[in-house]
Amino acid sequence: MIREGGGPAGETRVRVRYAETDQMGVAYHGNYVVWLDIARTELMRNLGFPYRELEQDGLYLTVTEVEIRYGAPAHYDDEIVVRTWIEAVQSRAISFGYRLRRADDPAEKTIATARVRLIATGADGAPRTFPEHLRQRFREVVQAAG
Amino acid sequence: MIREGGGPAGETRVRVRYAETDQMGVAYHGNYVVWLDIARTELMRNLGFPYRELEQDGLYLTVTEVEIRYGAPAHYDDEIVVRTWIEAVQSRAISFGYRLRRADDPAEKTIATARVRLIATGADGAPRTFPEHLRQRFREVVQAAG
Amino acid sequence: MIREGGGPAGETRVRVRYAETDQMGVAYHGNYVVWLDIARTELMRNLGFPYRELEQDGLYLTVTEVEIRYGAPAHYDDEIVVRTWIEAVQSRAISFGYRLRRADDPAEKTIATARVRLIATGADGAPRTFPEHLRQRFREVVQAAG
Amino acid sequence: MIREGGGPAGETRVRVRYAETDQMGVAYHGNYVVWLDIARTELMRNLGFPYRELEQDGLYLTVTEVEIRYGAPAHYDDEIVVRTWIEAVQSRAISFGYRLRRADDPAEKTIATARVRLIATGADGAPRTFPEHLRQRFREVVQAAG
Repeated sequence: MIREGGGPAGETRVRVRYAETDQMGVAYHGNYVVWLDIARTELMRNLGFPYRELEQDGLYLTVTEVEIRYGAPAHYDDEIVVRTWIEAVQSRAISFGYRLRRADDPAEKTIATARVRLIATGADGAPRTFPEHLRQRFREVVQAAG
Repeated sequence: MIREGGGPAGETRVRVRYAETDQMGVAYHGNYVVWLDIARTELMRNLGFPYRELEQDGLYLTVTEVEIRYGAPAHYDDEIVVRTWIEAVQSRAISFGYRLRRADDPAEKTIATARVRLIATGADGAPRTFPEHLRQRFREVVQAAG
Repeated sequence: MIREGGGPAGETRVRVRYAETDQMGVAYHGNYVVWLDIARTELMRNLGFPYRELEQDGLYLTVTEVEIRYGAPAHYDDEIVVRTWIEAVQSRAISFGYRLRRADDPAEKTIATARVRLIATGADGAPRTFPEHLRQRFREVVQAAG
Repeated sequence: MIREGGGPAGETRVRVRYAETDQMGVAYHGNYVVWLDIARTELMRNLGFPYRELEQDGLYLTVTEVEIRYGAPAHYDDEIVVRTWIEAVQSRAISFGYRLRRADDPAEKTIATARVRLIATGADGAPRTFPEHLRQRFREVVQAAG
């Protein structure tokens, strides 16, 4: 259901923390949301938009949808590669796609896929459109990947 | 997209912890997954199946899909009512639906909806079918709600 | 090393969440800090100072020291009773003491003790003295417990 | 109160996650415990004892004491350098010391110090002595630092 494509991809690595495991002996499923967050901000940084600066400029990205499909589990100390790409850009919304795998798996088996949708808001939480230079950059990125 | 119905509902209350807020001044979106988890285990307990006992009997419920749609934010110290119901039961999978609102909102406005799908596994993570008495109980519950 | 006394105590109950367990099958030690936080704000609320309102009035409590001594572990779904009291009050600092036990343990065995020290700051993080009415109330509480 | 010294030090870097911030706009104090955990396991790995392997050999390290003293706050996206060293080794216990600073601070100002004490246990949680080769290695390390 969640297919890769539609935009330039970045890869971020996170190592599963002990605090992130649960008593089933695997990474607790809720923690994947945090990894997606880290991967997304790293992709944004690489595109020239550090999230920290966006917030300082009064632009907030508020998550409106999260979808995760879990396959094989992740374990303590596993290094996870989170591949992230832009799926779609609208005037006030952006969607990211994700594919996760273990760094040490030569077969590069997907262990989870995800999609996260965000809207642009001001500090007050009210929706706003993306600044033109940001939207322009997003569009270039999606076209380049066309 | 996520509609209430298909099974008996339970209501669980969680109070937003300071640790769950982020610098946007709202509950961090990833923490909702934990609230869904708490609400689901409370519904299971009320149906007569404390999750702790299921695990002791060697039955694990592994989350395979999470979908959350966020509306209005939740804030520190808000009491959140998580309404939970069984959407569908199969031989080795079960889906729960959720609707979240603030306890002190007289209009009972929905602030988020969610769906979580789980499969039954053994301690080794291998899929298995639900024990017959569990499946039977789930079916009764869904029919009663019919 | 951490002894109970010096002020009025409150009791708060938290139930160990699945997300709070780790692969050792117990509550991850870092999560106790969150429980102390919850218990402290509940004691403050019971003394007439909801933390939410303090922040709205521009008074922030910043943690400067945490000490926890762990005895027996806590497990998933355990209800933990966190007994909290004020150990000492100064013009710009306050110390809380804690004793944790399982709710269902008839012997009321202590499973952890803790101490947390906080200073009063403004929204800018700069230290400030407690407002007089707050200090007055804290002093009454400590004297009543004398 | 917590002084550096007594053993070889390692340095680990963690970047403050958005999920780790709170509504005060800083890294939530409870999350430091997780960073100490990460830094400690990295030091152990560098000494030749990956924690994952210790657990696979049936040796668990259970935290019995945590002490943290917080100075300046850490913010979202800050890279934090956690300096870690072994303070003391006993037959069934080991203490680590920590000093935290921001990676981009030329003055290398300490933003927090900490101490964590752990005991060796079996999978059942019962205390046991460290295996001789581990204790030997710990002693070498402390003597080398003498």
